[in-house]
Amino acid sequence: MNLILVTFVSDNSLYMVKKPLILVTNDDGITAPGIRMLIKVMNEIGDVVVVAPDSPQSGMGHAITVNATIQCKKELIDNGPQTEYSTSGTPADCVKLARHEILKRKPDLCVSGINHGSNSSINVIYSGTMSAAIEAGIEGIPSIGFSLMDYSWDAHFDMFEDSIKTITTQVLNHELSQSIVLNVNFPKVTTKKQIKGIKICRQAKGNWIEKFDKRHSPAGQEYYWLTGEFVNFDNGTDTDEWALENQYISIVPIQFDLTNHQQIEELNSWSLND
Amino acid sequence: MNLILVTFVSDNSLYMVKKPLILVTNDDGITAPGIRMLIKVMNEIGDVVVVAPDSPQSGMGHAITVNATIQCKKELIDNGPQTEYSTSGTPADCVKLARHEILKRKPDLCVSGINHGSNSSINVIYSGTMSAAIEAGIEGIPSIGFSLMDYSWDAHFDMFEDSIKTITTQVLNHELSQSIVLNVNFPKVTTKKQIKGIKICRQAKGNWIEKFDKRHSPAGQEYYWLTGEFVNFDNGTDTDEWALENQYISIVPIQFDLTNHQQIEELNSWSLND
Repeated sequence: MNLILVTFVSDNSLYMVKKPLILVTNDDGITAPGIRMLIKVMNEIGDVVVVAPDSPQSGMGHAITVNATIQCKKELIDNGPQTEYSTSGTPADCVKLARHEILKRKPDLCVSGINHGSNSSINVIYSGTMSAAIEAGIEGIPSIGFSLMDYSWDAHFDMFEDSIKTITTQVLNHELSQSIVLNVNFPKVTTKKQIKGIKICRQAKGNWIEKFDKRHSPAGQEYYWLTGEFVNFDNGTDTDEWALENQYISIVPIQFDLTNHQQIEELNSWSLND
Repeated sequence: MNLILVTFVSDNSLYMVKKPLILVTNDDGITAPGIRMLIKVMNEIGDVVVVAPDSPQSGMGHAITVNATIQCKKELIDNGPQTEYSTSGTPADCVKLARHEILKRKPDLCVSGINHGSNSSINVIYSGTMSAAIEAGIEGIPSIGFSLMDYSWDAHFDMFEDSIKTITTQVLNHELSQSIVLNVNFPKVTTKKQIKGIKICRQAKGNWIEKFDKRHSPAGQEYYWLTGEFVNFDNGTDTDEWALENQYISIVPIQFDLTNHQQIEELNSWSLND
């Protein structure tokens, strides 16, 4: 299914292009530099509708708003052909609202990000950026989450413009039997030349070693800030962590069937029905 | 690794039992009937420490609190040997806080629930109950999430007491090479006799068909309530949905490597580095 349909008329001089409908979202909020860059690139590829949180939603995982209301309003943030909406919901809410309330038809693609901070290894689990991409995947929409291994608000995204175009075009041009959700992470580099290429990877085995910073309020009540350090336990050279450390752009294909199929046989040998 | 260590002395008349340390949490909040029942059952199996949210956290997915503080206080809710703490955090926060701040050692088991409402099929993705169990799994703690296919606050949990004991004891008595995270769902039945048994299953392919209920505030501003209907697309008889519809208790073993390993080869054939 090539969504960029080019119809030539008899003399080959005229053609009509049907552009793909692209939903853009993120978890850092609709005004974050990362999503502004992604909107700019997507405007060159398709018809863009932005539905993104009105405030930062980092660490929201796959949260959805079930016990509260969601506000949604039309926005005009940058000049450009895109249509934009901000919502009070989570990234997953934004995708649901876009699909079932805002958009007239199912989008051809959903892109989420560019996240300020990487979502490699176990971070995919905690990531609002990736939860939006996964939610789109559940809805049967091909989707890509983009993240940059740099938390700073003024990180440089422009050197990844060509790679974003390449990956997006490849997704639009390929029909897969299974749904496609890609977790794309960009390495922290200072020049475009340092990027070694794009590598298809598996999720590295890693973990956060947490530390809680315990403090006291002026009234004497204890409270905590969650801090911690990510540790990569995985020595493989086929992981996203390895790719990023070696200046490659990593792509991990993601699934949302969480069944550990290998363990089913083992569990069937347990005494559960005696 | 049998964690209930029984040491007999010479005349066989005296013995010492080392009980497993069990962390109990949930997403419906520390006072929910489901967790009170789970605490009661776990008190018969081990030394119980409860660290649970101070208010309901349904639909929180794998959210963690990164941009706000977490309050934590000791609680006395029911009489019993358990120690209890409530926190202002998400279910995943509770597990992190328990592991790295409250407990002196790594617990032998984490149980989460009993959730008021099922977490079968795709619901595992949105579930705070399962995110707590998965967080424990990431920390290398064997864990079980329990959910009942009944949303009502006065649902009857007592008929599942024996099954909870059986499943918990089996987990404590088995050492698996991989981490173990079980998604256990109880069917909606009215008597214990109706329960047909326990079935090891895979996650059914299913989805929510969302509907947004659009309303207007007294000031005229639009807002939405997320509603929807779950649809099971899966005809398999080896799924959690099939088991629950047929009055079985379903157990799905869960993994947190989200890599779609089958898709890696396909993606390697794409033109990404031309």
